[in-house]
Amino acid sequence: MKNTKQQQKLSKLIDARLAKLKLPQEPSLLYDPVRYTLSLAGKRVRPYLTLVACGICGGEVEEALPAALSIELLHNFTLLHDDIMDGAEKRRGKPSVYKKWDANTAILSGDAMYAKAFKQLQAYGRDDNYSKEEYSLILDLFLDSAEKVCEGQGYDLMFETQEDVSIEQYLEMIEGKTAALISGALTMGAAVAGASSEQIHELKYTGKKVGIAFQIQDDLLDVIADPEKFGKKRGGDIVEGKKTYLSLLALQRSEGKQHQQLTDLLSAESNTKEEIANVISIFRSLNVIEDTKSAMEYHYQEAIDHLQIFGDSTYKSEITEFFNRLISREY
Amino acid sequence: MKNTKQQQKLSKLIDARLAKLKLPQEPSLLYDPVRYTLSLAGKRVRPYLTLVACGICGGEVEEALPAALSIELLHNFTLLHDDIMDGAEKRRGKPSVYKKWDANTAILSGDAMYAKAFKQLQAYGRDDNYSKEEYSLILDLFLDSAEKVCEGQGYDLMFETQEDVSIEQYLEMIEGKTAALISGALTMGAAVAGASSEQIHELKYTGKKVGIAFQIQDDLLDVIADPEKFGKKRGGDIVEGKKTYLSLLALQRSEGKQHQQLTDLLSAESNTKEEIANVISIFRSLNVIEDTKSAMEYHYQEAIDHLQIFGDSTYKSEITEFFNRLISREY
Repeated sequence: MKNTKQQQKLSKLIDARLAKLKLPQEPSLLYDPVRYTLSLAGKRVRPYLTLVACGICGGEVEEALPAALSIELLHNFTLLHDDIMDGAEKRRGKPSVYKKWDANTAILSGDAMYAKAFKQLQAYGRDDNYSKEEYSLILDLFLDSAEKVCEGQGYDLMFETQEDVSIEQYLEMIEGKTAALISGALTMGAAVAGASSEQIHELKYTGKKVGIAFQIQDDLLDVIADPEKFGKKRGGDIVEGKKTYLSLLALQRSEGKQHQQLTDLLSAESNTKEEIANVISIFRSLNVIEDTKSAMEYHYQEAIDHLQIFGDSTYKSEITEFFNRLISREY
Repeated sequence: MKNTKQQQKLSKLIDARLAKLKLPQEPSLLYDPVRYTLSLAGKRVRPYLTLVACGICGGEVEEALPAALSIELLHNFTLLHDDIMDGAEKRRGKPSVYKKWDANTAILSGDAMYAKAFKQLQAYGRDDNYSKEEYSLILDLFLDSAEKVCEGQGYDLMFETQEDVSIEQYLEMIEGKTAALISGALTMGAAVAGASSEQIHELKYTGKKVGIAFQIQDDLLDVIADPEKFGKKRGGDIVEGKKTYLSLLALQRSEGKQHQQLTDLLSAESNTKEEIANVISIFRSLNVIEDTKSAMEYHYQEAIDHLQIFGDSTYKSEITEFFNRLISREY
């Protein structure tokens, strides 16, 4: 995914601010993993969205930097803990904190990062340009995201052992796990700009829908992307028996022998290349791939529609383009 | 430890407020462990201190209930995560969340509790009786505690594998692990009452010193308490090779053969009754027990001295009596 110049400019602002983050040297067991995690340069999508949302609502983007950092730190905190829960050994191509140190270190440095995320927002508490109501609203939006993201991960853990998961339940899980941080990023940026409650409401919805579209796209790419470009083997989710939009839709639509065959293939310990091809061909026969694509496009369009109340600006074009690239990526 | 009538009254206020805490039903994997943890009636020492500190500073104690609850939730969050790190199977006589469910559930429900703790403080954001400065100060004090408690736990994990730990380092660890939440409890109560920065400063110091005295007392009780009343076997810390005020002082004072013998006994996989008695007799020969008692009393006295700036009130007598009982407990 290529970055625009504007995105590069905003990313630089974010990286410069992250570099200025004062983390104590000691206890090293607590702060070294935090430094390590922040050095694994992620795409910084969420803080970027905070700055752009601030711009869309007519604010000075620099003012949104503490909010942007708080959401990036919150996101990284969730990654630290998720990697333990998922037993993930890699993060952004490097060993995860959980693997490089151990689970205890990942728990504790995650907790410390959580506090650091909150602390960023105290900048608005000290800044006279922000009223008490604005400051409190920024905190509310942050807390809302933090809570929803935990709930999403909670559903995810529950669904691992739950046999029947409906598409609605799956969407609720995504809404927490993926969409809540995007909604939080956008609405906090808007709140910093002193946006109206209607504007905040619309951006929350946009965030939710983009998050859902993004995750559905991710599920889809597992099946249709060019493995070389995607950086993962085709059908990885199928092999892991992961519940995805596609597998749930296929299970819902299949009947009799085909349903049984699909259930067996998805729950098998591992799958051969032929079995993966078999699952994908069942997906095709049930029109699952086409309909997943439609669902993704539907959520994406809803996201864009909710930007209508905002006047034209470079930031609005910027975010529309960004969402478009996010959703039309092929890997 | 007996409770006074006043303490019982305040505890009832706290329990009633905790009972009103609205926790979602779903995801059950997230909120059932939170409900379970809160139902394991602890002593609620920290929220009690928040209310009393509010009273000492001339505030309405009921006003401090959200702050009190936030510190109790923060405390319980740390217990959930600490139990994983310590592999503790019991908590307040019942299976720990980590044991009853699993590590992942304890990580995640702890994270959710952390957010709930913060959320309590939003009551001051919505309440017009609190200025932006007061609201921001309450959050600052809370964040300070949250961060220090992580740092204390970080030092604790580091010291497990560190050979030479000095008494100063040990005190720094306690200052985070035990004292930070007590300081936070007291200062947040004071901030709710609109206390001066001098008052907050003194209460912070009192909390730090009481926390240290309390932990030293705890270390001491492992060696001198009546095992039947204390509810733990004598010398449990010795068997576990835990670094305590006593063991560190004894290691510092012993020399040559005695130092080697002590090191061997403390680092042994397990100890016989005779070996425990042997360690205790080394402690006695080095005057460690008496000097630990003096250290505890010194920190306790410092805590009391820093209450001098507060005018006489039932709350001041209350807290002095409470600290006195805390420190003179024999089990």
